[in-house]
Amino acid sequence: MTYCVGLRLNRGLVFMSDTRTNAGVDDIATVKKMHSWHVEGDRVITLMTAGNLATTQALISVLDERSKVPEDRDPSILAVPTMFQVARLIGKTLKEVIQANSDTGQTAESAFNATLILGGQIKGMAPRLFMIYPEGNFIEAQNDTPFFQIGETKYGRPILVRAQDPTMSFEEAVRLLIVSFDSTIKANLSVGLPLDLMTYEADSLTLGMQKRFKRDDKYVRTISTGWGKALKKALDGLPDFTFNETQ
Amino acid sequence: MTYCVGLRLNRGLVFMSDTRTNAGVDDIATVKKMHSWHVEGDRVITLMTAGNLATTQALISVLDERSKVPEDRDPSILAVPTMFQVARLIGKTLKEVIQANSDTGQTAESAFNATLILGGQIKGMAPRLFMIYPEGNFIEAQNDTPFFQIGETKYGRPILVRAQDPTMSFEEAVRLLIVSFDSTIKANLSVGLPLDLMTYEADSLTLGMQKRFKRDDKYVRTISTGWGKALKKALDGLPDFTFNETQ
Repeated sequence: MTYCVGLRLNRGLVFMSDTRTNAGVDDIATVKKMHSWHVEGDRVITLMTAGNLATTQALISVLDERSKVPEDRDPSILAVPTMFQVARLIGKTLKEVIQANSDTGQTAESAFNATLILGGQIKGMAPRLFMIYPEGNFIEAQNDTPFFQIGETKYGRPILVRAQDPTMSFEEAVRLLIVSFDSTIKANLSVGLPLDLMTYEADSLTLGMQKRFKRDDKYVRTISTGWGKALKKALDGLPDFTFNETQ
Repeated sequence: MTYCVGLRLNRGLVFMSDTRTNAGVDDIATVKKMHSWHVEGDRVITLMTAGNLATTQALISVLDERSKVPEDRDPSILAVPTMFQVARLIGKTLKEVIQANSDTGQTAESAFNATLILGGQIKGMAPRLFMIYPEGNFIEAQNDTPFFQIGETKYGRPILVRAQDPTMSFEEAVRLLIVSFDSTIKANLSVGLPLDLMTYEADSLTLGMQKRFKRDDKYVRTISTGWGKALKKALDGLPDFTFNETQ
């Protein structure tokens, strides 16, 4: 499995992804699921991937190849004029990659599907955040729910729904995301440390802060143990239940 | 979907279930998913059901019929000597009900499966808590994880894992369960109020407290709004994240 979250704040975008990949519980490895492309002062594009690893690696390779040599940048995510067209191009590429594996040769038990979170900004326009489906179509984050999750989304969702707030600072957002990831990691073995973090400051048009939270990261450990205690305290602070109250 | 939790405490057993059943989002209804049988001073048996409604209703009817007339109590959950045999009997019955629908006639798109939580006590033995699978086999709650969830289990699990504690009072357990159910209800439309609650006091061998939390229940509303605030406060109390700390 996988767990990735993309969060749209007033200040910009925050991305976090785990790095565990597995083909059964006896075959796990660490891979990067967060990828960025940028043209300084023009655009920054970040993509997170969940799903079949052969599919997502092929997708990233195709996108990479098309963006390396300027002459070949057509169609390229570094050449199209809007984030909407970036999303469309990546969706189309994803669909092609999945199709290429499905059409011919042997069939696999599981589908070659993948789901993506795409975020970024192109000069002159606002930062945007998308979720792209294996079918190649996509949706955009709106104000009511300005975040997307992919992979193992359920365990970490309640805290996100309750606590996310577009006026958050990046630091507050990271703390929230660590809590959401910690709940997921505790419940699903196929989501695991290290975690990759990237922030994008609105209108900066340059790569933001990047950080890898390693397996022994002190901050993650502090949050993980602190959150258990904080939850119990929060629960204790709620009104008591009594069986004989009239309602 | 459904959400049910059975919790084993030192003081006894606590059961909570939602009551929403649905055949698509445009076809929802309220049904009881919690059922009890008891022989005063001899045994108390509580069963919660998740899955295909035709299957679970048929199962309950069969168990009911077999336990109404004392002469017909063989095999009956009111006659077998241990909770282990109660679990075996219910598992066997469940398997037969599923089989009966699967073998003949038309086939359905979805399986006729159901999963159960069984808890209770028979005189002279300790209270026990089981989870019964559609295959008819079952597992028992142990000290390390003394609770079971069925149905939509993921959203409400992190708080249960963190906060459950066998030394809890029934009142504390109910408050915890309401929080867990509230997270689930907020995330999955197919889990909904009213909620049914039942407690069983160890060695009482009589039915415990029962309560239905209705749609407009004041306590549930208080917890639901209070929990959002408490979570934000708990989050604020965690150590701040800073990008430049060395680790």
